[in-house]
Amino acid sequence: MRQVAIIGVGSTTFGKLEGTGIVELAVAACREALAESRVPREKIQSFYLGNFVGERLAGQGSLAPLVASRLGLTGIPSTKVEGACASGGIALRHGVLGIALGLYDFVLIAGVEKMTASSTADVTAALATAGDELSEMRTGLTFPGAFGIIAREHMHRFGTTREQIGLVSVKNHGFGANNPKAQFRKAVTLDAVVNSRLIADPLRLFDCPPISDGGAAAVLCPADWAREFHPRPVRVLGVGHASGPGTLWEMDRITSFPATVRASREAYAMAGVSPADVDVAEVHDCFTMAEIVASEDLGFFPEGKGGPAVEDGRTGLEGTVAINPSGGLLAKGHPVGATGCAQVYEIVKQLRGEAANQVGDAEIGLAHNLGGTGVVSTVTLLGRM
Amino acid sequence: MRQVAIIGVGSTTFGKLEGTGIVELAVAACREALAESRVPREKIQSFYLGNFVGERLAGQGSLAPLVASRLGLTGIPSTKVEGACASGGIALRHGVLGIALGLYDFVLIAGVEKMTASSTADVTAALATAGDELSEMRTGLTFPGAFGIIAREHMHRFGTTREQIGLVSVKNHGFGANNPKAQFRKAVTLDAVVNSRLIADPLRLFDCPPISDGGAAAVLCPADWAREFHPRPVRVLGVGHASGPGTLWEMDRITSFPATVRASREAYAMAGVSPADVDVAEVHDCFTMAEIVASEDLGFFPEGKGGPAVEDGRTGLEGTVAINPSGGLLAKGHPVGATGCAQVYEIVKQLRGEAANQVGDAEIGLAHNLGGTGVVSTVTLLGRM
Repeated sequence: MRQVAIIGVGSTTFGKLEGTGIVELAVAACREALAESRVPREKIQSFYLGNFVGERLAGQGSLAPLVASRLGLTGIPSTKVEGACASGGIALRHGVLGIALGLYDFVLIAGVEKMTASSTADVTAALATAGDELSEMRTGLTFPGAFGIIAREHMHRFGTTREQIGLVSVKNHGFGANNPKAQFRKAVTLDAVVNSRLIADPLRLFDCPPISDGGAAAVLCPADWAREFHPRPVRVLGVGHASGPGTLWEMDRITSFPATVRASREAYAMAGVSPADVDVAEVHDCFTMAEIVASEDLGFFPEGKGGPAVEDGRTGLEGTVAINPSGGLLAKGHPVGATGCAQVYEIVKQLRGEAANQVGDAEIGLAHNLGGTGVVSTVTLLGRM
Repeated sequence: MRQVAIIGVGSTTFGKLEGTGIVELAVAACREALAESRVPREKIQSFYLGNFVGERLAGQGSLAPLVASRLGLTGIPSTKVEGACASGGIALRHGVLGIALGLYDFVLIAGVEKMTASSTADVTAALATAGDELSEMRTGLTFPGAFGIIAREHMHRFGTTREQIGLVSVKNHGFGANNPKAQFRKAVTLDAVVNSRLIADPLRLFDCPPISDGGAAAVLCPADWAREFHPRPVRVLGVGHASGPGTLWEMDRITSFPATVRASREAYAMAGVSPADVDVAEVHDCFTMAEIVASEDLGFFPEGKGGPAVEDGRTGLEGTVAINPSGGLLAKGHPVGATGCAQVYEIVKQLRGEAANQVGDAEIGLAHNLGGTGVVSTVTLLGRM
């Protein structure tokens, strides 16, 4: 397989972007990535777009060929991939494989979602389609509810404290305060987190991500050619993509997602690196609790030790592994189909030394994207070259 | 690239399948395909699922990993692809490429849609998301309307008659009458077609497909191994996938879809065959008019000659190329995300000599899948081996 590099990235600001539609968001992110890569449009041979609920919340299907058309890329195969909130990571993986296997030389990938024009009730119902409608969501379970249950179980089983969980929010909002692309640019105190409005016990408002609009994109090419297009290209070291049980009730234990474990093993094996080699990680903190679970499933900390790791500052900029220096989904925002690509955007910026909250001398970065309560996950490892 | 074969296919009956949900439909089709292929489940390495409006009409996203989980395929990468009504063809292409490029040995692909539990207004609105919401559908244009405009232009430009267009419906409903999987199993007369209820001038009720539930699936492996699994495997000769202009107003002329032309050229080139070599074709007759346009875009007849070709019986079982012997979308039904896979199901049956309306000695078959008003298309060429 050919080595693959990322030679350009783009991202809109995340937030409530009134008056900007879903197609425009994707186009803006793609234009920035294309401009940075200096790849002429006519060289792009394939386009993958991650999107989850565009048909429901933005009234727009056929998004991939439509965005391609608006970019002047009419003609090339353009494919929307969907894996709930992991759609962006799946788009990246398909772009990487297309080049690695020699099918294409230049691929554009992106993720997008437009959510803020809909009511909170409509957004909640749309996001709930990520769970099994028949045997789980029909009971009224929502994603805040699911992660609330997971939080209670993690606390019960491992002694994780409400404060440890809340410190994820404090850390990520602190990072968001410095990130000009973030939706929330204000630090919060632990006191504010644990006393914010109750959403799904024990999770409170600041344990949850906002409803967001946004798009992110990247341009890929064979690593051998990368320096012709960008002075600091980033190498794709490994990609993993796995599925897991369809519901919480089918899981052996709800405090670990087998899809994340499998996807990360695949990515680590392909890259030939171990969790200890990772300097910076953007992980899927769709709730504070989810970051702690991910930090264990990805092998950064032993099972049950994710809570103390946060408390001890081991996930901060100077820690064992800096987690979510972009502000994560909690503070940067979570336009669901865009998130996987936005994580890659941040890791590329980190490895180039251009990040808002820069991890000193970051050489290896990881992006972890999760769909539903672990029904699908992607893990991407990137390295400086 | 490795040669790829289809070693098992499955399809539900299409129609109003009350009490059967979207996951069950996909699972049923996949089980049939897996059983026919005799490939043990643990050998399946990847799953691609075509689906368009599952989040809207069935309240179910994350469909690919969820269906994989229900099939006992938990763990493998499972990806939903969406290209409006061409979603099934895109799923097949990704399965084929995965094996051709050596990434996988055994891949399961499927398409599914559940539509009849929703109101006609909700279905029409959901399907309209295949068009550009901002610059076209917002005006109130729907797909029957779009194909009505195309029909008027084809009649004006080429002298195509109302009767020629109606004869597509007569032919396809005639085929559907013999197909036990079809939603409509009753022949119709030309008189009945041209006097049926007006839907979008000049198109009438029998020019339009029904609202349908259904699923279809196939199992793929390297052609060299195919006979170990099925006595009459079918070779994938070529696959094409292209996008086109996002709207009717951006097209040079609305009586030809550039995406179909490009996708078919790609597939013919990969297969090393010409339109004249094709014995049987399942083309995307989402309306009677669409079959005539496709028969020209695929190179079976010169531009503007698709109408007379139907009238002269050149698209019948004994014609130049038998088109839609399954009954097509018009009579077999059109569960939109399933359609591309159901076309492949029919062509495989034809090449094995097992079809309900068998084309004598069919050696090469074609499946043509279209999304929106030509924003995306896939073309697949299959051959006896």
